[in-house]
Amino acid sequence: MSKLFMFEKPLGMRDTLPELYETKKQLRTEIVNEMKQWGYQMVETPTVEYYDTIGASSAILDQQLFKLMDSQGYTLVLRPDMTAPIARLVSSSLKTEAYPIRLGYHSNLFRAQQHEGGRPAEFEQIGVELIGDGTVSADAETIALMIESLKRAGLESFKLAIGHVGFVDALLVDIVGNKERADLLRRFLYEKNYVGFRSHIKGLNLSSIDKKRLEGLLKLRGGQHLFNEAEKLAESEQGQAALRELRELWDVLEQYGLSQYITIDLNLVLHMSYYTGTVFEVYSQELGVPLGSGGRYDELLQQFHRPAQAIGFGVRLDLLAEAIGQTVPPERRQCVIFSRERRNEAIERAQKLRSEGEIVVLQDLAGVDNVDQMSDEYDEIIYVIGKSKRGDSAHE
Amino acid sequence: MSKLFMFEKPLGMRDTLPELYETKKQLRTEIVNEMKQWGYQMVETPTVEYYDTIGASSAILDQQLFKLMDSQGYTLVLRPDMTAPIARLVSSSLKTEAYPIRLGYHSNLFRAQQHEGGRPAEFEQIGVELIGDGTVSADAETIALMIESLKRAGLESFKLAIGHVGFVDALLVDIVGNKERADLLRRFLYEKNYVGFRSHIKGLNLSSIDKKRLEGLLKLRGGQHLFNEAEKLAESEQGQAALRELRELWDVLEQYGLSQYITIDLNLVLHMSYYTGTVFEVYSQELGVPLGSGGRYDELLQQFHRPAQAIGFGVRLDLLAEAIGQTVPPERRQCVIFSRERRNEAIERAQKLRSEGEIVVLQDLAGVDNVDQMSDEYDEIIYVIGKSKRGDSAHE
Repeated sequence: MSKLFMFEKPLGMRDTLPELYETKKQLRTEIVNEMKQWGYQMVETPTVEYYDTIGASSAILDQQLFKLMDSQGYTLVLRPDMTAPIARLVSSSLKTEAYPIRLGYHSNLFRAQQHEGGRPAEFEQIGVELIGDGTVSADAETIALMIESLKRAGLESFKLAIGHVGFVDALLVDIVGNKERADLLRRFLYEKNYVGFRSHIKGLNLSSIDKKRLEGLLKLRGGQHLFNEAEKLAESEQGQAALRELRELWDVLEQYGLSQYITIDLNLVLHMSYYTGTVFEVYSQELGVPLGSGGRYDELLQQFHRPAQAIGFGVRLDLLAEAIGQTVPPERRQCVIFSRERRNEAIERAQKLRSEGEIVVLQDLAGVDNVDQMSDEYDEIIYVIGKSKRGDSAHE
Repeated sequence: MSKLFMFEKPLGMRDTLPELYETKKQLRTEIVNEMKQWGYQMVETPTVEYYDTIGASSAILDQQLFKLMDSQGYTLVLRPDMTAPIARLVSSSLKTEAYPIRLGYHSNLFRAQQHEGGRPAEFEQIGVELIGDGTVSADAETIALMIESLKRAGLESFKLAIGHVGFVDALLVDIVGNKERADLLRRFLYEKNYVGFRSHIKGLNLSSIDKKRLEGLLKLRGGQHLFNEAEKLAESEQGQAALRELRELWDVLEQYGLSQYITIDLNLVLHMSYYTGTVFEVYSQELGVPLGSGGRYDELLQQFHRPAQAIGFGVRLDLLAEAIGQTVPPERRQCVIFSRERRNEAIERAQKLRSEGEIVVLQDLAGVDNVDQMSDEYDEIIYVIGKSKRGDSAHE
């Protein structure tokens, strides 16, 4: 083995040590239990998919895909998201199941990293897809479930920002005239580059009224009162329709008792083309990056020949664990250290303690180099050593 | 998207539908809880590793590795087993932790398949590694934990066959004279090709006594009484030492109260070179293939510059689920179907039922194509529809 790589992991790949394992497990369990109570059924899909099936339909940039070749020369990818795999699943193994279909998952996703840095190349995402339901009720359910999941996991201070692709698109096209020009502006919003957005506006050949309307878009972040201002900006029927949807959505979320978690962000653009309606993103006080997002994608399923309106969300479990911190207190651990002549007694003792629910390491003294260093790791050491029949107990 | 691939998964890749998901989850939870009570701490390692670190040290054939290239041109692999990644982990992130180290995992492993057929290219394995302890007590602990884990998961009729690399090697080399010739015979045992083994013996230039000794090896499968016969066959000190270890191991497993699960199989060869001592394999009545195996590998850790004797086992969760069958009864599911004007009432109703622990789908009537087909999936449908304030309940 080359020395260079002996202890190394590929760019962005990480080990999960016991403490983080337990925290992630705890958060995952709570969220999955919430999803199941809302009637979502959990599925798994393969880590490896055909590029032509999943990679090309995914919302992820091509350069972020891990690609490999199978023995027949077809290109495979490590799944970059779960939405496309679930669309494939719904159109094949589940094709006889009636819409709407509610599915949940917790799966590792892969994004190739080009540079050494903070971003993980593999991370666990937990989420749902609600497929075959285009109502605002479905939008509200998805958002309410995301909020309830985060609350149940123990996240305290967070906000979910809601936007609408239809509103942004209508306003931009209405003002700049066509989709190509609108896309130039949309990309600034996608990259959250508001300085770039403003400076791009300045160079446009538009009336000062239209320039003000475009700049007005950036102010549409906040509470429910924004709907009135947004209505003045959006002249097209498409823009007005998007706002009616958002108003209805707000009312339903109020009925769910969750409006204190909601903000409106009408310049939210999560992807250049993937989403078709409501989009949303969650921020916690602790992190500078969103720890989850979601939206309506009414056009993906027809690529799999089973057209359906659909909406879903995904939460990054690694970021959620970072925001919440360690949730699981270390468990009490005992160690029975024995010498060979008293092994039978030690086995009995360990079995009895385990049957009472205790965590017990059973350790042959002959297998330990350094008893002191080892015993530091336990709350209690029980020595079953030497000729005596009485085990000595030492509390550490 | 090309039609060819639209609904396809790569060779050997599978979806996990909700029923199997729940079964696997149940089995995994039971086994992890058992491992934790024995003091094993759970870890995760990356799906993708450097070939030079993990692929080359793995017990898996090169042609079964999924290989890919990173952006710098280094070869990566999808992890084919967990032993080498955990050896890397123990030698890097955990290098300050004293031996013995007890770690557990449940992780998807990858084996490229060359042909369409029954074998999965990705499967979940659950297991432990006990690193830094070369005692027979450690061998017994690993085997006892494997048996208790399978019992706790609900597996009823199974046997764990124990062999010893040292015994087979000593006997073969003793008779045929050198390692190269011994390896020819060992490969037949590894492939469980006993007909081939016998016919190869016939062609060897050996005395009829030695030929009988070799054939005698094949009969060394059964109970504790075999130790006496094996002692007659094994003349070398290495062979006798292996048998002494196995006798001691049997005694300890008897003390654990588990000897009824054990058989001795002195021609068991699990790998051509990886293992160094005790090896074992589990068979259940339901399956024609072993659903788990393990063994002592005292030479792997020195490749990672932190030498240690070590032993571990892995259980195939997919095969265990197949052997046990569905363990989780389908849960009771209700559906509240509402019309928009009574949405608030429906939300309240669903929230109340969920707070009582029920599984409740909340469904806008406007989002359903075929109410009859959908309602077939639920144990109870609660209609909150029309102008009436009274919800009608229909039992299905």
